Amino acid sequence: MTRINENYRKLQAGYLFPEIGRRVKAFQAEHPDAQIIRLGIGDVTLPLAPTVVQAMQAAAAEMGTAEGFRGYGPEHGAEKFLVEGILENDFAPRGVTLEADEIFVSDGSKQDSGNIQEIFGPDCTIAVTDPVYPVYVDTNVMAGRTGEAGADGRYAGILYIPATEENGFVPPPPDGPADVAYLCSPNNPTGAVATREDLTQWVAWARRHDAVIVYDAAYDAFIQDPSLPRSIYEIGGAEACAIEMRSFSKRAGFTGVRCAYTVVPKGLTGTTESGERVALNDLWLRRQSTKFNSVPYVVQRAAAAVFTPEGQKQTREQVDYYMANAALIRDGLGAAGFTCFGGEHAPYVWVRTPEGLASWDCFDRALREAHVVTTPGAGFGACGEGYVRISAFNSRENVEAAIPRIRQAFAG
Amino acid sequence: MTRINENYRKLQAGYLFPEIGRRVKAFQAEHPDAQIIRLGIGDVTLPLAPTVVQAMQAAAAEMGTAEGFRGYGPEHGAEKFLVEGILENDFAPRGVTLEADEIFVSDGSKQDSGNIQEIFGPDCTIAVTDPVYPVYVDTNVMAGRTGEAGADGRYAGILYIPATEENGFVPPPPDGPADVAYLCSPNNPTGAVATREDLTQWVAWARRHDAVIVYDAAYDAFIQDPSLPRSIYEIGGAEACAIEMRSFSKRAGFTGVRCAYTVVPKGLTGTTESGERVALNDLWLRRQSTKFNSVPYVVQRAAAAVFTPEGQKQTREQVDYYMANAALIRDGLGAAGFTCFGGEHAPYVWVRTPEGLASWDCFDRALREAHVVTTPGAGFGACGEGYVRISAFNSRENVEAAIPRIRQAFAG
Repeated sequence: MTRINENYRKLQAGYLFPEIGRRVKAFQAEHPDAQIIRLGIGDVTLPLAPTVVQAMQAAAAEMGTAEGFRGYGPEHGAEKFLVEGILENDFAPRGVTLEADEIFVSDGSKQDSGNIQEIFGPDCTIAVTDPVYPVYVDTNVMAGRTGEAGADGRYAGILYIPATEENGFVPPPPDGPADVAYLCSPNNPTGAVATREDLTQWVAWARRHDAVIVYDAAYDAFIQDPSLPRSIYEIGGAEACAIEMRSFSKRAGFTGVRCAYTVVPKGLTGTTESGERVALNDLWLRRQSTKFNSVPYVVQRAAAAVFTPEGQKQTREQVDYYMANAALIRDGLGAAGFTCFGGEHAPYVWVRTPEGLASWDCFDRALREAHVVTTPGAGFGACGEGYVRISAFNSRENVEAAIPRIRQAFAG
Repeated sequence: MTRINENYRKLQAGYLFPEIGRRVKAFQAEHPDAQIIRLGIGDVTLPLAPTVVQAMQAAAAEMGTAEGFRGYGPEHGAEKFLVEGILENDFAPRGVTLEADEIFVSDGSKQDSGNIQEIFGPDCTIAVTDPVYPVYVDTNVMAGRTGEAGADGRYAGILYIPATEENGFVPPPPDGPADVAYLCSPNNPTGAVATREDLTQWVAWARRHDAVIVYDAAYDAFIQDPSLPRSIYEIGGAEACAIEMRSFSKRAGFTGVRCAYTVVPKGLTGTTESGERVALNDLWLRRQSTKFNSVPYVVQRAAAAVFTPEGQKQTREQVDYYMANAALIRDGLGAAGFTCFGGEHAPYVWVRTPEGLASWDCFDRALREAHVVTTPGAGFGACGEGYVRISAFNSRENVEAAIPRIRQAFAG
């Protein structure tokens, strides 16, 4: 008699994006001629940078030769050339020094942010902002760290920290303790970005409560203001309390290529019941070496190509392109009376629904009347109710077509 | 105060292959001139087939165009062209009919066989053969389904089924029940292969006890006798009790490319505490859509190329090459008085250690005196003590050089 993991039964409706996919598919089936513009799921649209394509092709050719063939990748995931590119480009310029074996390369920040909870104890208290990227919550639900969801969609046992207009969608740390806090900046879904002062507060809180911050910086490339922190390790003391995740998905168009990495500093520890300190780096290494097998060699070469001068230039142009889209959305909807947030250091614009519409109703109206797919804020948590997320990941043409359609659908 | 997952502390020494890696590295450092031949880890060595390389390169080029670019992959992991290739080539010729959404493409069978336990309840009883691929056990230890390990390395709470010379290393099902049984055929590490009769017994056992068989067929391409089953679904009733895993790693040299798949038939169910039946396909879909993001498009194209006529011919030649190595090892060591098993339908030869040597002592002697890396059988379980696994994944030249070296190291 094989019992299932009944924690899965606590999960609501279905993961957000599949649910959106189902509604869009149903609408498209009813209206086969509708030219639907997808500003819902945060998926990139620009083709891969030429330098990246060339690197993949060259690596594929290498794999076809006796001398160049590579089998299993290294235990930490990263080939030397990639980890060096990461250290030299993503951290050194920000004054952050990390060691090679503090970097774990993976096939995605979704995977890493979903899997990281495995190294923590079953009774750890989880804190998340609300709204929140659903993976942080759902993976803890699946692991049994929560009770059932209430009417507001919140799971018993999780500490939700409201991210609201009042706190600029970057909430301060809670008054009390928690064991593991997930932070995402630039934020998905709100597009808000944490300042140095914000992160300093969070690091102080984590140090005070001996908590671990899981810092998801998947969108760091979209930060426009160089004085804003790109890495939480720019804040002193973070190396003793934070795990950081970065991705090539959005900054280099890798959602269909799959490469990301997670930093677990060696000085970061958790405790056993008996009070012994255990390095989380050791636990994560054990987790990854047991359940993972690195990312394809061709993908590692593609990711390393992002760090070449041409790669940096070409991917920077992609980021700029999406950020110009974000500005168009923000300005275009703002001029029409919508209240917009984010979109300045993130590829997402967080829009207050007009007329107090519920998020899913706003989603449905945008879909049916504007043929534009958004993401209902309520899908990200109770505090997301009354907002929709609009993604800047699309062609200029589509973004320019979508804005007047949305304005018209919600006019008068 | 962030508590760690203390189940990790139950894990022994380190995952087998990293431990081997450490010993080999230490030996090489002491003896920089030693020409070490690695027949330890089961990692392929032949370059990728030309058809596969071309497919990857073409796919990379596609990703560099506006029309050909692909972002996030499908929820089930597989692009249509790949799932069709799988159904038509891996199952239809064996008389097995599956639906597209019963196939979940992933980045490896190690991942899938490690992650599959997440959908089962915490109190499920796990049965494994002994010796066993360590991932099945370690991932259940990490998940808390076991007690501590005893002096023999066996974890309390796991049902170990001895695979011995007496049962030809293909043990019959246990007399009593278990909830989830992991089977691997062709077997890693023993190289033994299950017959139709063997699998029929196992399916009957699983049906009788309402158990789930996790069937790892990562090495199916090495089966030489067409009358032997390639898929457990060739056995009637298996679709109601078995999950099957397949990989491109060994059959097409994809250990550094990363592509595999798992079959979860829709008729396969587990139960809730209240006795309700829940489709495991739904649970696995939820798991994968929450924690995974498919495999790279270029990799899916590479995998699909394996099914083209040229791809089949080229990868078949690779398999034949390794199997010729296996025959050389088996015959060469057999002629020198070693007792060898496996290597006929699998790329592994399972060798009884001479003079009753312990596995790790045999490993060390082969390393120090023959400069050949093997895998100590004890690393796969208590019943592996007294054996070493020798992998056929290497060049003909290296295999031919290794055999006399081993013979000499153990002579007299």
